[in-house]
Amino acid sequence: MRKFGEIKGYPEGTVFNSRAEIKAAALHNRTVHGISRIKNVGCDCIVLNGGYKDDEDNGDVIIYTGEGGKKEGKKDHTSHQIFKQGNLDLSLNKDSREPIRVIRGWKFKESEYSPKSGYRYDGLYYLEDFWPDETDKDKFRIWRYRLVKKDGDFPPKRSENAKPSRTIVTTSRIDRDPEIGPELKELHDFRCQVCGIRLEAHGQAHAVGAHIRGLGKPNNGDDSKDNMIILCPNDHLIFDNYGFSIDDNFNLIGREGKLRTIPKHTINKENLRFHRKKYSIAIKSI
Amino acid sequence: MRKFGEIKGYPEGTVFNSRAEIKAAALHNRTVHGISRIKNVGCDCIVLNGGYKDDEDNGDVIIYTGEGGKKEGKKDHTSHQIFKQGNLDLSLNKDSREPIRVIRGWKFKESEYSPKSGYRYDGLYYLEDFWPDETDKDKFRIWRYRLVKKDGDFPPKRSENAKPSRTIVTTSRIDRDPEIGPELKELHDFRCQVCGIRLEAHGQAHAVGAHIRGLGKPNNGDDSKDNMIILCPNDHLIFDNYGFSIDDNFNLIGREGKLRTIPKHTINKENLRFHRKKYSIAIKSI
Repeated sequence: MRKFGEIKGYPEGTVFNSRAEIKAAALHNRTVHGISRIKNVGCDCIVLNGGYKDDEDNGDVIIYTGEGGKKEGKKDHTSHQIFKQGNLDLSLNKDSREPIRVIRGWKFKESEYSPKSGYRYDGLYYLEDFWPDETDKDKFRIWRYRLVKKDGDFPPKRSENAKPSRTIVTTSRIDRDPEIGPELKELHDFRCQVCGIRLEAHGQAHAVGAHIRGLGKPNNGDDSKDNMIILCPNDHLIFDNYGFSIDDNFNLIGREGKLRTIPKHTINKENLRFHRKKYSIAIKSI
Repeated sequence: MRKFGEIKGYPEGTVFNSRAEIKAAALHNRTVHGISRIKNVGCDCIVLNGGYKDDEDNGDVIIYTGEGGKKEGKKDHTSHQIFKQGNLDLSLNKDSREPIRVIRGWKFKESEYSPKSGYRYDGLYYLEDFWPDETDKDKFRIWRYRLVKKDGDFPPKRSENAKPSRTIVTTSRIDRDPEIGPELKELHDFRCQVCGIRLEAHGQAHAVGAHIRGLGKPNNGDDSKDNMIILCPNDHLIFDNYGFSIDDNFNLIGREGKLRTIPKHTINKENLRFHRKKYSIAIKSI
């Protein structure tokens, strides 16, 4: 049975000589693929090894590229990445909040955090966001994932030989204002702006404050009311998966209906355009 | 702005002399209450200090009692706890998965993990479950919360003076079988057993596998198919909040309708009875 989280006997900083060793230790279940996964459940481990040139490594924040869309060992994409298999399963960690083991390999030379040789297990990361994007050169669709480390060590730089002492990882954490969501929920009386449902249990209403444009690098959405809509959990899930979008007149795209708006809650249309751009990439070819 | 997670300068194991010191350090925003909270957002910190006799402390797993229902300083309950204020806000951490700082105080003498004197910050815990229960003596309703530590140190025992070395906290972690949910979702074609909705984005269906009887101590539900139903996120939220329940003939209680069942998926009615018992306590008086 594959499992999420730490694997006993292999603490953060453990070094491996090969992918086969990593597989034998049950940290990752493949020897070539970057994504190790449990089908329709989630991803338990990724290897970051320079296979995709859109990967970005900031130590405690990684922008990871999904699998496929190019030939093994090649840098250039030759087709769209599809939202199935590893790319789908990795996306499920956003909702499940299961941790992902991150292993850095020596081939990712663009990263200052990759080891000089071999592979290093760098602890648990969490999927904060995912979105479709396009390659610079040929405009092929890729899926991108923002992974953030919340506890443990900041990974050592290649120039450092020693394992770093334990530090709290906070540098790239997005400090969200916790008051924004509740204020907007009250304004909308906890009613979903898409389907109009108002969920209640024991007189207590429930809704989700959803950011339209994702926070943090590289999407850099604002943590503000004009970048948020109030949704029920069902519509939040679909909106976050780019299953529908919203036009400048608040008509829904990809589904019937119109966003319910109120005068006191202004939505920045720039943010809607940003979501639409992602949506249009997502639906290109599935 | 209050925040979740670690507070810089106060690592795990930090000792405080008084509640006032803890408040000054911004770890907790009250000096008497156990629950520190952001209204309608969640709980950022609790103090475990022997105020409620139903509290249970197993080190990395805490069964915490909600606030209210008795007079300050008294042990016996004199009224029902209500699902508002701190009790409501703490429950929100189940969905938000925001971490809760746990501080143990010297007055909780029934716990072998409480400090001999003063207060100790013991790191971040996560809310895995909450449910209504009744006090043994007078059958007053209390709200109970299962908090689990996932990273960091196992708290030191009172008999130990030294701070323990870092150990991975895994002893009380519930290992769920990740295959059960996906299999059941396929069987139900990702259709919610309560409302019948089938959520889809880009051809990929989404649903939640919800345990009927909570896993782990003290509810001890089984991680099995006969203790699980397939729900949409909306109905999952309400079911988990005991906003409705299900009778032995699969009629919904507290709402119109009937659970959609299929022959290949047997539900253990003992688990339904368990959920109903909690539901009946929850609706006693809100």
